[in-house]
Amino acid sequence: MNAYLIFTGTELLLGQIVNTNAQYLARQLADLGIDLYTQVTVGDNCRRIAEAIAAARDKADLVIINGGLGPTEDDVSREALAEALGVELQQNIEALAVAERFFKLRGMPFTAANLKQGLAPGGAVVLDNRVGTAPGIVYVKDGVIYALLPGPPREMEIMFSEQLVPYLQQNCKLKAVIKSRVLKVVGLGEPMVEEKVREFIGAANPTVAPTVKLGEVHLRITAKAADRAKAQEMIAGREKDIRERLGEHIFGTDEETLEQVVGEMLARNKMTVATAESCTGGLLAHRLTNVPGSSTYFQMGAVTYANRWKTRLLGVGIETLAAYGAVSPETARAMAGGIRQYARTDVGIGITGIAGPEGGSREKPVGLVYIAVDVRGKSQVFREIFSGDRQIIKARAAQAALYYLWRQLQLRDC
Amino acid sequence: MNAYLIFTGTELLLGQIVNTNAQYLARQLADLGIDLYTQVTVGDNCRRIAEAIAAARDKADLVIINGGLGPTEDDVSREALAEALGVELQQNIEALAVAERFFKLRGMPFTAANLKQGLAPGGAVVLDNRVGTAPGIVYVKDGVIYALLPGPPREMEIMFSEQLVPYLQQNCKLKAVIKSRVLKVVGLGEPMVEEKVREFIGAANPTVAPTVKLGEVHLRITAKAADRAKAQEMIAGREKDIRERLGEHIFGTDEETLEQVVGEMLARNKMTVATAESCTGGLLAHRLTNVPGSSTYFQMGAVTYANRWKTRLLGVGIETLAAYGAVSPETARAMAGGIRQYARTDVGIGITGIAGPEGGSREKPVGLVYIAVDVRGKSQVFREIFSGDRQIIKARAAQAALYYLWRQLQLRDC
Repeated sequence: MNAYLIFTGTELLLGQIVNTNAQYLARQLADLGIDLYTQVTVGDNCRRIAEAIAAARDKADLVIINGGLGPTEDDVSREALAEALGVELQQNIEALAVAERFFKLRGMPFTAANLKQGLAPGGAVVLDNRVGTAPGIVYVKDGVIYALLPGPPREMEIMFSEQLVPYLQQNCKLKAVIKSRVLKVVGLGEPMVEEKVREFIGAANPTVAPTVKLGEVHLRITAKAADRAKAQEMIAGREKDIRERLGEHIFGTDEETLEQVVGEMLARNKMTVATAESCTGGLLAHRLTNVPGSSTYFQMGAVTYANRWKTRLLGVGIETLAAYGAVSPETARAMAGGIRQYARTDVGIGITGIAGPEGGSREKPVGLVYIAVDVRGKSQVFREIFSGDRQIIKARAAQAALYYLWRQLQLRDC
Repeated sequence: MNAYLIFTGTELLLGQIVNTNAQYLARQLADLGIDLYTQVTVGDNCRRIAEAIAAARDKADLVIINGGLGPTEDDVSREALAEALGVELQQNIEALAVAERFFKLRGMPFTAANLKQGLAPGGAVVLDNRVGTAPGIVYVKDGVIYALLPGPPREMEIMFSEQLVPYLQQNCKLKAVIKSRVLKVVGLGEPMVEEKVREFIGAANPTVAPTVKLGEVHLRITAKAADRAKAQEMIAGREKDIRERLGEHIFGTDEETLEQVVGEMLARNKMTVATAESCTGGLLAHRLTNVPGSSTYFQMGAVTYANRWKTRLLGVGIETLAAYGAVSPETARAMAGGIRQYARTDVGIGITGIAGPEGGSREKPVGLVYIAVDVRGKSQVFREIFSGDRQIIKARAAQAALYYLWRQLQLRDC
C-alpha cells in the first residue's frame, strides 16, 4: 500500500512553523507498513491543493490531506478535494454535529461561517474530533482513499490514531508491521561504532541506522514483518548481535537518558553524589536533578567560578592553584574530593575547564576540560578537548562527566 | 520569482528525522521576496527525484534540490537532475577539488567512490562547501535555475547563505525584500500582550506575529518592501508603536536572551551575583554562565537539595526551616541573603520549590516556587505556581528568577 501526504498551509511555505506533522505521519505510516511515496506542501490555495490531489491520485492508494479544515476563507481543503475529484460537497449531518458540539461545549455561538465545516462529498465517512472543531473526512473514489485531517498537531494525532488507523485496519490489507528500538551508545565515536556493527547497518531487514547526539550514538533497529510478534522477535535478535559487540557501551534504550540510568545505579547502590563545577556552570547538577526522585541521591552542587570559592568551599589548596592552575588535573581532583567531603557523599565530581570563547592559551586551549570522579576517596581524572562554541563545550563536558560516572558505577554495580 | 523545493531522503519519508531544512529555506526565501510555490519530499530514488524536478520545471523560476549529494549509491540527485533535463554529467574539476580538499584536510583517502561528487552537467556553477565533502551545483536551463544543496543542515545553511544568495542577488531580479525583527516580551502572558497590540497583529504590512516561548512572548514584525531601507523603516515605525504600549516589558530583540541582557546590566553596573538553588537544580547558574564573559559577574552558585546544606552553607536557620518549611518565602529569602553573604556579592538569588512529580501537598502543590532576589541586603520574594512536568517547572522557575532579577536591575540601571 502506497501513501501520499499533502500538507496545506501558507505558514509552512513562509517558514513560520516547522512541519512536525510530517514526521509524525511518516513514522506512523511506516509502523503500519504503508510505504510513503511523497510528501508535498502547498499554500492555502484551492487550485494548488486540487492539483496536488490530482497528481497524487495515480500514484497512491491513500492520499492524506492535512490542514485547511477550519471555518475561515483560507480553509479550502474540502473544496479542493471536490474540485480534484469532480464531486459535489453536501451538508453532512454527522460532520455538522461534530463542529457544533465543540462550540456548544464552550458556550460559543455557532455562526453561518461554521456551516462550512459540515460539508463533505456524498457518501463520505466522518471522523470525529474530540479536541477541536474540525471534523475529518474519509472519501473513497476509484479505489483510492482520501483522508482529510485537521492541521493542529494534537487534533491530527488523536484523529489519526483513534479513527483513521482503525478505519485502515478494517478496510485495507495492511501488508506489514514496522517496529523499531533504539540502543544508546556512549563513550565511542560514530566511526568506531559503525565499524563494529557495519554488517548490520548494511542489512535490509532489520535495518540498523546510526544517529549522533552530543556524545552519544543512537542505533535504531527497525524490523518489518507480517505481525508485531515477528517484528519484535527480529529486533530482539539483532539487539543481541549488537550487544555482543558493543554491550559495555550501551547504557540504555529508546527514551532512557544517561542521567536516568546513572540515577538508578546510584539509588540501587544506596550511594549519594555531589558536584563541583567550574566550566559547566551548573549544567551537570541540572541534568542530574532532571530525574524525578533525584533528591534521594543528589545531595548538593557547587558552581565555583572564581578561584577563591574553589579554595574556601572545596578546600582546593592555594598552592595547587598556584602550581598547576585552575584548569588542571590536580585542581579537578581536589574539587571532586573537596565537594565529597563537604557534602559527606559517596561520590564527588569535579569539572574544570575552559568553555571559551576567551581564556584559552597555547598550552590550555578553549575546550580543554578535566573531569575527576572521586568514589569514597579513590579518584580518577580524565582529560578531554572539546570543539564547538561555549554552550556545546559545556554540554559535551557535562555529558562526559555523566559517562565517566556511569563507568565508575558499572564497576561496583550490584 | 517563484521557487519550488525538493527534499530527498528516505529517512524523511520514514519519519526518522524532522525536516528542519524545510523551515530554514522557506524563511530565507521569504526574506529574499521569493514566493515558495511548493515543497515536496521524495525518497532516495533517481526516477522519483527526476519526476519531481520535471513537475517543478513548469511552475518555478528556481528549483532547489536538497540532499543526495554524498558519495554513496543512495546519493542520486545529480543523476536525477541530468535525467530530468536530458543533459549529461561530466567530471567538473572545480567540484572535484571541493570534494578532495575535505578528505585531504582530514588525512582520509579519496577513493573512486568519491569521484562521483565531482560530477556536474556541463556549464554548471560549483558552490564551495567549506564544512563538508559535497560541492553544490547551480545549473540554468530554459530560464529556470536549478540548485543542488547538500542535506546536512549546517552544510546547507552555510552554502545557501554564503553562496546561493549572492548568486541569486547577482543573477535575478528579486522583486521585494522581506525583513523581520523580533521583540521579546517577558512578564506578561500572551493574551495580555495580544490585547495590547491587537490592531498591529491584524495589519497586513508590516505584520506582527506572536509566538510563546517558556515565559516569553516574541513579537515578530515582518515588513515587505521594494528595498531593504524601506523595509527597515517600516519595521522601525511599528517597533516604536509596540514599544509605546509594551516598552517596560521588552527586554531584547532578535537573538538576544534574557541571561545576556541581565549579564550586560550586571557588568555595566559593576555588580556581582551568586545563586542558591533548590528545585531548579543548577539551571539558573547554567543559564547565567551560558553567556560569554559571565565570569566577570557570576561568582558562585550552590545547589542545595538537602536541608542540611541550606543550613550549613547558606546559614538558613534550623528554626526557619522548622517553622515555615523548606519551600517558603522565609527560606527563599534566607537562601538569597545567605549565598550573597557567603560569596560576598552584590546580588543573591534564592529559589526553593517543588518540581515534582512527587512531594506536593494540598497547601504546597507541585509547581509552587518561591524566588528571592537580594540586592545589597534588600530583598524581595516572589511566589509562583507553575504547571507542567518536572523539567518544565524547572525551566519556568529559572526563567522567572531571571525576570525578577532583570526587573530589580532595571530600577538601578545607569
